[in-house]
Amino acid sequence: MYRLYDFLASGNGYKCRLLLHHLDLPFERVEVDLLRGESRTEALGRLNPEQRIPVLELEDGTALPESNAILCFLAEGTPWWPAGRLARAQVLRWLFWEQYSHEPNVATVRHWVLHGSTDEERTRLLPRKREQGVRALTVMERHLAGRAWFVGEGPTVADLALYAYTHVAPEGAFDLGPFPAVRAWLARVAALPGHVTIDHAAGRA
Amino acid sequence: MYRLYDFLASGNGYKCRLLLHHLDLPFERVEVDLLRGESRTEALGRLNPEQRIPVLELEDGTALPESNAILCFLAEGTPWWPAGRLARAQVLRWLFWEQYSHEPNVATVRHWVLHGSTDEERTRLLPRKREQGVRALTVMERHLAGRAWFVGEGPTVADLALYAYTHVAPEGAFDLGPFPAVRAWLARVAALPGHVTIDHAAGRA
Repeated sequence: MYRLYDFLASGNGYKCRLLLHHLDLPFERVEVDLLRGESRTEALGRLNPEQRIPVLELEDGTALPESNAILCFLAEGTPWWPAGRLARAQVLRWLFWEQYSHEPNVATVRHWVLHGSTDEERTRLLPRKREQGVRALTVMERHLAGRAWFVGEGPTVADLALYAYTHVAPEGAFDLGPFPAVRAWLARVAALPGHVTIDHAAGRA
Repeated sequence: MYRLYDFLASGNGYKCRLLLHHLDLPFERVEVDLLRGESRTEALGRLNPEQRIPVLELEDGTALPESNAILCFLAEGTPWWPAGRLARAQVLRWLFWEQYSHEPNVATVRHWVLHGSTDEERTRLLPRKREQGVRALTVMERHLAGRAWFVGEGPTVADLALYAYTHVAPEGAFDLGPFPAVRAWLARVAALPGHVTIDHAAGRA
């Protein structure tokens, strides 16, 4: 059985949970409370030199860090990973874009807003991060205009990866009002059979 | 024939050039001078909403942005992309790590040092970025201790992606002295048949 080192509030963890539920794969969740500094443990360090969740541990003890690599691994051979080479490349394009242009802005702003900080550096960086987050949402809005899913005619791991932090962007005081195509797409992802919410804490037996 | 929208000084562009040469694939380079603001053109905007290079344009006009997605696309079916599902996931793990934890620090510091700026925000951010860059090099050093390549027994696109900005880290005043395993690995990558340097401007006919 898979073991997922996870933190319930983490969108990166949620991506993996969500796909595991969609695929109906049994897994055990190990909660690592990042806010209490629990990720900096020796055990997690052995699994991931970055000491970050999520990490997927396989039956044989192999550790796979990086949320989007976990998604690709689990999705192979399922409809969440397209059959065509170019479609797979476009899924990867959105996964890399999510980690480089979306997560460091949309997720980071949410984290700072939720777990507020009087940290001077964060206060200085926040407006720029927020501007970049709005820019990322704008890129999504333009791409989704006239499209139901990020790549091809059905949902892929690109949609799950981008759903994770986009649907909680309002917790970071991002206004999704100006992004109707993004809001319609969020509703489509949430309506998929097998969907679970970010606070769904149970693994699958 | 492939067309690569590229910028010679860019490590992200170099990754793609390097693999195209290794695979002996003909391609045309279109130089976009980022430093002169040329990336903000309407033409590039049509290919990539981020208006960033590299973008790979296929014969039929399809545009594929994101350097690491381009690597995966080109590498499929070649020895640069492992045959095993878990090995592929580990390659992806390093590719995502490169974009999230390495490039924003090692590459950004190099860019700021090379094209110096009196920009106040950059001056403030530089020490933290440099610290994170050294942290990334440390993760690589530990992983490469006792290993020749990042994943498995031979070179993969994970090695090319990480080579691109690591080998020019000294241009960002990073000292590779304390990282002997990284230096030995850089020499191994540079010694591969088909290798070209970052300033190798020619496409392949």
